[in-house]
Amino acid sequence: MESFIEFHSKSSGIYLKVKNVLYRKKTKYQEILVFENDFFGRVLALDNLIMITTKDEFIYHEMLSHIPMKSHPNPKSVLIIGGGDGGTLREVLKYPIDKAYLVEIDEEVINVSKVFFPELSKSFDDQRVKVIIMDAIEWVKKSNEKFDVVLIDSTDPFGIAEGLISENFLKNVKNLMNNNSVICIQSESPLYHLEILEKIYRTFKIVFSNAYVYTAPIPTYPGGYWSFTMSFIGLNVPEIRNNYYIKHLKFYNDEIYKSSFSLPQFLKERIYGTN
Amino acid sequence: MESFIEFHSKSSGIYLKVKNVLYRKKTKYQEILVFENDFFGRVLALDNLIMITTKDEFIYHEMLSHIPMKSHPNPKSVLIIGGGDGGTLREVLKYPIDKAYLVEIDEEVINVSKVFFPELSKSFDDQRVKVIIMDAIEWVKKSNEKFDVVLIDSTDPFGIAEGLISENFLKNVKNLMNNNSVICIQSESPLYHLEILEKIYRTFKIVFSNAYVYTAPIPTYPGGYWSFTMSFIGLNVPEIRNNYYIKHLKFYNDEIYKSSFSLPQFLKERIYGTN
Repeated sequence: MESFIEFHSKSSGIYLKVKNVLYRKKTKYQEILVFENDFFGRVLALDNLIMITTKDEFIYHEMLSHIPMKSHPNPKSVLIIGGGDGGTLREVLKYPIDKAYLVEIDEEVINVSKVFFPELSKSFDDQRVKVIIMDAIEWVKKSNEKFDVVLIDSTDPFGIAEGLISENFLKNVKNLMNNNSVICIQSESPLYHLEILEKIYRTFKIVFSNAYVYTAPIPTYPGGYWSFTMSFIGLNVPEIRNNYYIKHLKFYNDEIYKSSFSLPQFLKERIYGTN
Repeated sequence: MESFIEFHSKSSGIYLKVKNVLYRKKTKYQEILVFENDFFGRVLALDNLIMITTKDEFIYHEMLSHIPMKSHPNPKSVLIIGGGDGGTLREVLKYPIDKAYLVEIDEEVINVSKVFFPELSKSFDDQRVKVIIMDAIEWVKKSNEKFDVVLIDSTDPFGIAEGLISENFLKNVKNLMNNNSVICIQSESPLYHLEILEKIYRTFKIVFSNAYVYTAPIPTYPGGYWSFTMSFIGLNVPEIRNNYYIKHLKFYNDEIYKSSFSLPQFLKERIYGTN
């Protein structure tokens, strides 16, 4: 394997030279591939879609975590759905929380991260963490836990992750959320997957009565530009509600919090239907 | 030619299938290539670097033009250096300006745009436009014109465009700027070319005593994330100083103006040296 191309459409994609393949295995759920690239470092791909690279993973993980965490007045409990690499977990553990549950369908993703992405997976060693290997769709039906912050850190919502954007699933998640709480999901590329982003936004709006889209540049994701959708229970508009000072952030800062909700005109019109 | 790869580093890049090559010619200055891609539409590459695609050119051209145009209280005269495709010109002509000069070194870029990118090059038909085919480095030494807004819309500043970020050149440009005026340059990828961005920022700071960096997501440029650097004469911080309503914008809006200056932490620290 000399090169890796992830097709973002039938005729476009990202090209990476493969220095060497470190791991390749088909699990029950997906094909896991880890390789080295001179520019991006170690790359984790699931079903040939890049999930993380050591060079740019900080952007995705910081933006999925800190915007919702900062939106909560005092986040103490976090549920992560997916996120088996441990990167999102690493970020939420930077807050003085009491517990973080991570529900991952494919244990092998965690195992692979423990071997090849120690900077992310070291978060699994934290005493506050509880890992549940299970399909989140089933788990949320049965759990009685309650959370302040829920982060859906899934693969693209086709295939195994498709159920994670359904109304039924989100209603079950809602039952696990505290009176004042926040939920956030990665909601795909505004350029390549605008229909999916719109669908996620509409579904969140239906289930939670409110929804807000924010964006961040992520070089190894389709279009280099990514969206997140956030909803509240018991809180309203996005605003910074706690002043925990989180050290060593490379992307997030409080100005980024505010600016990330400013959408380009085409996206604003499409999502919010206004001018 | 079945596929086109633009390498952003030695080991990474963007991959595009080539549906058909429409034009390919080596001019005195560079190799011009125009091809069709199913996702991005028509693509213009100079020396194998993508300059524009019909699908995403609006982002680059709107962000290079409207941020500086909106920063001026009443822009009447504009100088564009480079920009032979006509896209930046198209955007500035949306304002009630009196004159727009475009100084392009390679006439063939304009000719190619007139044939293959009519939506951009139609701007050359406007009566307010004066096109000068000349090396801008020479032209700015001799001209006596004065401008409210200067936009440097060049190729990457290595090779033929390298002189466009030199202190000498910028001092000559400064002589052509009115007492209250704005200058803006595309300043490369914060992820791939951070040294160049930093060099541009420092040079602008030296020549104009102030400089501000803003960013935008541009899918077909390296890292999908691009920077622009802006300086003022007689004005200070970036703010919206006119309320011309510009129709049919797809990326720019006034919220984007404000948010685009919020830099991610790694970039803020590197450029402004603050926390």
